[in-house]
Amino acid sequence: MSTAELYRSYKEKMQQIADVKYSAAVLQWDQETYLPPKGATARGRQLATLSEIAHKLFSDDKLGGLLNDLISKNDLNENEKRNVELTLEDYNRNKKYSSEFVRKLTEQVNRTFHSWIEARRKNSFSFFENDLSLLVALKKQETEILGYKVHPYNALLDEFEKGCTVEFLDKVFADLLPALKNILEKIRSKPQVDDSFLKKSFPKQQQWEWGIWLIKELHFDFDAGRQDMSEHPFTTSFGNEDVRITTRINESDFSSMTWSCIHEVGHALYEQGLPGDQYGLPLGEAASLGIHESQSRLWENNVGRSLHFWEHYFPVLQQKFPEQLSNISVVQFFKAINKSEPSLIRTEADELTYHFHVIIRYELERKLIEGSLNTKDIPVYWNERYENYLGTKSPDDLKGCLQDVHWSHGSFGYFPTYTLGSLFASQFFAAMRSEIPDINSKLKKGETKEILDWLRKNVHVFGRKYTSNELCQRISGKSLDSSFLVDHLLDKYSLIYNL
Amino acid sequence: MSTAELYRSYKEKMQQIADVKYSAAVLQWDQETYLPPKGATARGRQLATLSEIAHKLFSDDKLGGLLNDLISKNDLNENEKRNVELTLEDYNRNKKYSSEFVRKLTEQVNRTFHSWIEARRKNSFSFFENDLSLLVALKKQETEILGYKVHPYNALLDEFEKGCTVEFLDKVFADLLPALKNILEKIRSKPQVDDSFLKKSFPKQQQWEWGIWLIKELHFDFDAGRQDMSEHPFTTSFGNEDVRITTRINESDFSSMTWSCIHEVGHALYEQGLPGDQYGLPLGEAASLGIHESQSRLWENNVGRSLHFWEHYFPVLQQKFPEQLSNISVVQFFKAINKSEPSLIRTEADELTYHFHVIIRYELERKLIEGSLNTKDIPVYWNERYENYLGTKSPDDLKGCLQDVHWSHGSFGYFPTYTLGSLFASQFFAAMRSEIPDINSKLKKGETKEILDWLRKNVHVFGRKYTSNELCQRISGKSLDSSFLVDHLLDKYSLIYNL
Repeated sequence: MSTAELYRSYKEKMQQIADVKYSAAVLQWDQETYLPPKGATARGRQLATLSEIAHKLFSDDKLGGLLNDLISKNDLNENEKRNVELTLEDYNRNKKYSSEFVRKLTEQVNRTFHSWIEARRKNSFSFFENDLSLLVALKKQETEILGYKVHPYNALLDEFEKGCTVEFLDKVFADLLPALKNILEKIRSKPQVDDSFLKKSFPKQQQWEWGIWLIKELHFDFDAGRQDMSEHPFTTSFGNEDVRITTRINESDFSSMTWSCIHEVGHALYEQGLPGDQYGLPLGEAASLGIHESQSRLWENNVGRSLHFWEHYFPVLQQKFPEQLSNISVVQFFKAINKSEPSLIRTEADELTYHFHVIIRYELERKLIEGSLNTKDIPVYWNERYENYLGTKSPDDLKGCLQDVHWSHGSFGYFPTYTLGSLFASQFFAAMRSEIPDINSKLKKGETKEILDWLRKNVHVFGRKYTSNELCQRISGKSLDSSFLVDHLLDKYSLIYNL
Repeated sequence: MSTAELYRSYKEKMQQIADVKYSAAVLQWDQETYLPPKGATARGRQLATLSEIAHKLFSDDKLGGLLNDLISKNDLNENEKRNVELTLEDYNRNKKYSSEFVRKLTEQVNRTFHSWIEARRKNSFSFFENDLSLLVALKKQETEILGYKVHPYNALLDEFEKGCTVEFLDKVFADLLPALKNILEKIRSKPQVDDSFLKKSFPKQQQWEWGIWLIKELHFDFDAGRQDMSEHPFTTSFGNEDVRITTRINESDFSSMTWSCIHEVGHALYEQGLPGDQYGLPLGEAASLGIHESQSRLWENNVGRSLHFWEHYFPVLQQKFPEQLSNISVVQFFKAINKSEPSLIRTEADELTYHFHVIIRYELERKLIEGSLNTKDIPVYWNERYENYLGTKSPDDLKGCLQDVHWSHGSFGYFPTYTLGSLFASQFFAAMRSEIPDINSKLKKGETKEILDWLRKNVHVFGRKYTSNELCQRISGKSLDSSFLVDHLLDKYSLIYNL
């Protein structure tokens, strides 16, 4: 076979696998949005079958043969070569797992998830601990299966953020943590801002229409996507021309939906901007979880919580909710939506204190995987860290170490990508400002198209071609540097709290 | 392997195939309800891949081996034995198709569907004719591949209604046709009823809520299903605990949605009543298309267009639409919803004239497949038949021979099941009346649960265990007999038109 024929055959196999994975994604989307309650059992088995088929197709020795043939060819173009390299990496990684180990892990995840639900119902970590310890043992085994340099946790980090290591994160967080502590301390010495008007009653239907209007303003293509309701907001896609956002509405908290819409539309614009001709191939996929999160956070925080942005949109918002907002100034609004204070729940935390939550989970996971912390000791360790970093103390496990679903899914190494997202976002936004010098005056006019164009050109179009670190280098000329996020936060909170 | 092990292994394989088919059904449902326009291309390939995977799994020689091992075992129970027999039949039928023929047929269907769209746009059969003739040639080839007794069309009929033949249909329709003609002639000599109040404005949201309320009244289990909007109403299921109905709303025609809801809920109650422990196996599937249609028509026509039913529900309806219906009596309403007159479009035809449309298509298809009619001559033949049976003449092809999608999909042998559905419905309803003697007084009180229970016990619970003819024998003690439908229509129209 000629190289072109080999490549075509490789592409066909990958697209078939993508068809199955995207089909599973449709079933999952439906599960979160429209599935009737009794449909859950059959849906569970349908999803398991699709995932098994996708796994089987991706483990096929013929695909391995094709990849090994292709990798030695000299007449692939740059993008083709990159696709083959990345697929071979994924393929070899996938091949390391025995089907026995996959089965064991799947079963333990299933049990651990149910223990987590049970423990939450009983508000007691003890119902979760035993299954969690078994799952941690399997994750440790997984680090040995995958192999790693220096620290076993690196093997797990690599799955979500290629090239990310304990050494790297320790350094980044060591810079970030004292700077965040410093800002938080200053804020706590100042009078708190008033956000009570955000807790007035904002009717569901009006919020829904406002959300749809806003994400349209932010260039979400409704011909290539939708927004629906679900219990937890998320973005999913079945190809770059079918990208779906979900949201939820809290009638007595205006913030809840609006910034979740802006956050999700950031993810969605990334998905809609991925190259469609690379369907099923690595260059048609997102670069990493950290980069994905950078897109949502840039829109949510750097754009969507800025004074300039609301100078344009607040008058519109006031017209839609005159009763609730007519006596409020845009500066009052800007302050309220950026109110910062220590709290217990990560997903409800503000832009500043959020990262303490993430760093605590990172430190905890690293210790669990290296074996220096026992699952039994999680609640004590958790409370000690929260006391130390945020000066808060959870009244119970529900608001403490049982709050996140991630561990019960076996997702160790995922949390750090949330903070990486904010760090990349601020670093990219700084680079963007130097290339779009009048960005503030554009934001004041509600013009955000150039921001999207810049992200399309510098991030979206590449898919997985570059790692997050390579992308960061290309965009800003340097590796990840926490000072961009710190500067962004300092600027914002100085304005709000007169630091 | 023991018989129990063999059977378990067969069941697992079948359930895996069902998982893939139901997954495809979820993707199709989404395509008709929520898919954004640009998502159609990727969705097309995702569906093609799932269908290819399901076909491959069902053609697996290992499955064939299992089935042939199992069929010779004496220690299967009655239901297990029936499952194996039916699956082996399906398997052997499926195996007759070469992948080359399947590819050719799929491609020709695809082309013919597009020609049909084009021909409809141009309102000219000539744009459809060439592809249709190629498709008919392939369908003739298919009859040879499948094999048949007496008439080639029997091979195609068998796919939708097992055991149904040209000889059988000719006999049934020969009885039915003169009786229907006779009723229609009598009606046409009488003054027409007034249904103008059904064409007043009925707001969308109110109709939607009324439809949901009504199907709940008719025992649709919303914990095991949903109703959504789509361009064409349909019912689909992803297992008996996830059954989905769709509907559409015409604000200036009250009939459009209400009886489509009742019709679809008939299909849906059947799906929800199929035995869940037979998931993926023949005994978990509907008996035939004719039986499926009998369930929808029994609820739509025998129940949902009866005077007794509306004696209970019309007052409720009047309360929901006082402006439109307050001056109307239940008898006026009953007459209006049963108005009968010849018309051009099958899907809009009333309960009586509907069958002329079906019989014309049946006669036409039979002639095409036996080769006594050329596709070129369809428009002339069509108009001559409509003139003869209904005294109508289509002004163009759009309202004539281009109106139905079925032929463009290659579905020859499907249409007769619509009339079979009405015939079974009336025959079953007559049997039901003799077992629930006070059924009229129950209907007058809005009590329909016993009707559902009877259908569950006599039809739903068996899945595909019996053919439609066997079911009919069990229920009524005799084969299909058109006099039950004729009597039902005579009773109803005598009341309305004083025949």
